[in-house]
Amino acid sequence: MLEITRLSTTQPDFWESLARLTSDETETDAAVENAVTAILAAVRKEGDAAVLRYTSELDRLDASTVAELEVAPERLRAAFESLGEEQRAALTRAEERIRAYAERQRMKSWEYTEADGTMLGQKVTPLDRVGLYVPGGKAAYPSSVLMNAVPASVAGVSDIVMVVPAPDGELDPLVLAAAHLAGVTRVYTIGGAQAIAALAYGTATIPAVDKIVGPGNAYVAAAKRRVFGRVGIDMIAGPSEILIICDGQTDPDWIAMDLFSQAEHDEVARAVLVCPDALYLDQVQQSMERLLPSMERSDIIRAALANRGALICVRDLVEAEEVTNTVAPEHLELSVAQPQKMAERIRHAGAIFLGRHTPEVLGDYCAGPNHVLPTSGTARFASPLGVYDFQKRSSLIQATPAGAAEHGRVAAVLAQAEGLTAHAESAAYRVRAHEQE
Amino acid sequence: MLEITRLSTTQPDFWESLARLTSDETETDAAVENAVTAILAAVRKEGDAAVLRYTSELDRLDASTVAELEVAPERLRAAFESLGEEQRAALTRAEERIRAYAERQRMKSWEYTEADGTMLGQKVTPLDRVGLYVPGGKAAYPSSVLMNAVPASVAGVSDIVMVVPAPDGELDPLVLAAAHLAGVTRVYTIGGAQAIAALAYGTATIPAVDKIVGPGNAYVAAAKRRVFGRVGIDMIAGPSEILIICDGQTDPDWIAMDLFSQAEHDEVARAVLVCPDALYLDQVQQSMERLLPSMERSDIIRAALANRGALICVRDLVEAEEVTNTVAPEHLELSVAQPQKMAERIRHAGAIFLGRHTPEVLGDYCAGPNHVLPTSGTARFASPLGVYDFQKRSSLIQATPAGAAEHGRVAAVLAQAEGLTAHAESAAYRVRAHEQE
Repeated sequence: MLEITRLSTTQPDFWESLARLTSDETETDAAVENAVTAILAAVRKEGDAAVLRYTSELDRLDASTVAELEVAPERLRAAFESLGEEQRAALTRAEERIRAYAERQRMKSWEYTEADGTMLGQKVTPLDRVGLYVPGGKAAYPSSVLMNAVPASVAGVSDIVMVVPAPDGELDPLVLAAAHLAGVTRVYTIGGAQAIAALAYGTATIPAVDKIVGPGNAYVAAAKRRVFGRVGIDMIAGPSEILIICDGQTDPDWIAMDLFSQAEHDEVARAVLVCPDALYLDQVQQSMERLLPSMERSDIIRAALANRGALICVRDLVEAEEVTNTVAPEHLELSVAQPQKMAERIRHAGAIFLGRHTPEVLGDYCAGPNHVLPTSGTARFASPLGVYDFQKRSSLIQATPAGAAEHGRVAAVLAQAEGLTAHAESAAYRVRAHEQE
Repeated sequence: MLEITRLSTTQPDFWESLARLTSDETETDAAVENAVTAILAAVRKEGDAAVLRYTSELDRLDASTVAELEVAPERLRAAFESLGEEQRAALTRAEERIRAYAERQRMKSWEYTEADGTMLGQKVTPLDRVGLYVPGGKAAYPSSVLMNAVPASVAGVSDIVMVVPAPDGELDPLVLAAAHLAGVTRVYTIGGAQAIAALAYGTATIPAVDKIVGPGNAYVAAAKRRVFGRVGIDMIAGPSEILIICDGQTDPDWIAMDLFSQAEHDEVARAVLVCPDALYLDQVQQSMERLLPSMERSDIIRAALANRGALICVRDLVEAEEVTNTVAPEHLELSVAQPQKMAERIRHAGAIFLGRHTPEVLGDYCAGPNHVLPTSGTARFASPLGVYDFQKRSSLIQATPAGAAEHGRVAAVLAQAEGLTAHAESAAYRVRAHEQE
């Protein structure tokens, strides 16, 4: 028997129930925080020596220098070339499509000149050096390497430093192949908070980076939070989630499997279906019950659906949109007849998959848009990872003597009002210079 | 006698000295952290009651309801209308110019269709509701209200909630006038960590926002860090700073005053001049000594220059660019003959002011670009505050049945490789549907 929450917007406590279902309290674990504090301090002080010590202790990987933990570029290339034909073709195709979409995202510099000759603009430059964290062991995902490294490469980052733990020396060849394909500059087999510390502070061997991206466990997330400010970081990802709006006209097996594909990530993944047809919700539930036993990861799926799954009956599709805008889901499937019209009314979602033939899984691998997306309702204010995360802007201002005089007068009035008289005087020098010409 | 560090790139320890000069260790103060923890927890649990209690205790401002702490829109308008003609004109002109520049920054949605009919895109939407923190008391800066609120307004944020403490009931009319002009929706006279908590969690009276921006003291900064993730935040600003590259051909008094205009902010502001001409550095130092006694804020300027100021002699202008790219300054003045050519070689700076007639003060008030800029070297990875900070992106993916089949095959191969079989099966449903057509 499959356990999943059923909700209806006609319940008096519906919105409170929805809020409970979708709330992710990210409690910071004191033990994790303390361990991370010690690791950050040790790596900052001792550099390579601390990295070697933690790598030996935590990953059972012994080396006498950090340089020995570097994976040579030839080994990345060899990993790619030794893939089977089908996997190599699929990885290559995915990389091409991710790159093609990313190219459209690249920001460009601009400037304009006003009537008095004053030039204003915005100069866009890539980050110099970026760190990419890749989890090791069982959760090694080559798709994650592509999704994090390709936008950095398209942005023009000249040094992409990847860290990936190799517990007991184990390394996924597909991860190495993806690093080769995506343009990663160098790879070190280190992980955990010690890898984040090495990237943030730099060591004799590992260069300090400007920004760190990529998913990781609680230690990695805590370390990223702590070094934020010294370096940039991407969002700290919460559990993965999908919300599907269906009008009741899609094959229920398809929707059941789309929910499973989210639920199989882990026991706290969230899979929610919203539909105005209660009978259709029953059909999807029956499909899930029938299909579940055949799934390889059925235990995880079952647990996730029981913990965080929901079938929500709404009065109509307009109400479904309202539920969606409240949840601000990471992934949103619009399995309806008029998905484009509906998408226009969606204000908050990480990625929107339109139509019955666009399952979320396409976005995980090869549609093109990034699979690193804002979770836990953060789509209210955050965006997918993109090329723009590896570029930054500088404002440009060039005044002519006439422009400086005009704007200088305005600035001087406001500076005086704020009590900043050196500001006012700095402007006044240019005003007087122009008046005396 | 004016005390300021002199450095030369010919010193063997130059780069270490530069690193020391420009390092900002943001130590978290345990007392501040503990106080903020208590305040966040109290406001989250008790809502309005806790906000009223802290406001009475810390700002000596008593009210029986939070609604009483709201400043009515009519009062904002009245503050604007009662300004003197000169101030009103300056504020209006500044707002217009900030808005005009911001309009150029607005991101637009885009989409494209591939040969097989697959549509990919990026949908841009404004945030729903934003909180704007404005410091009260002596550090009340109307320019800061404009710089934070105008980009939100241009982005299309429909609710801009401003909080500004009014210690002992004191409120700067220019701040209220700026709020009126910039399109702030509502204003509450609350401040400190309690205001950040109210904006992040919401109370019965104050609505929860999606992002909080604006400067504040150590308590405000600590509170913003803590609620990050639940809401978005802007960067935590460090001390303000300027680096000026001069070729030795600008009036030394102008450069002295430009350095003062940075130094007068506070005792930890950083003002650095880089020049290949040691005699010119002497001239600027003499100008500073002569001009300092006449400055209203001479004590602050003197302290800032002694703490964090520097006159750096370089071998040539190319080396000056190298120093600049290492420092990644918040403000950069290029007081040289060919500023545009030099700007092309600058990789990291918050805002670049080109030419002798473009003092940094223009950017503080009315040039147009934002004065909220990345400090402490974070221009290596961060950007000025802009319209883009109040917009976010959602990826759009719509596959045709043919496209779903093609991309579904690729996705299924990679999903199988990652051991995610429900992912593979979700894609396979669409592949089979197309094959059977």
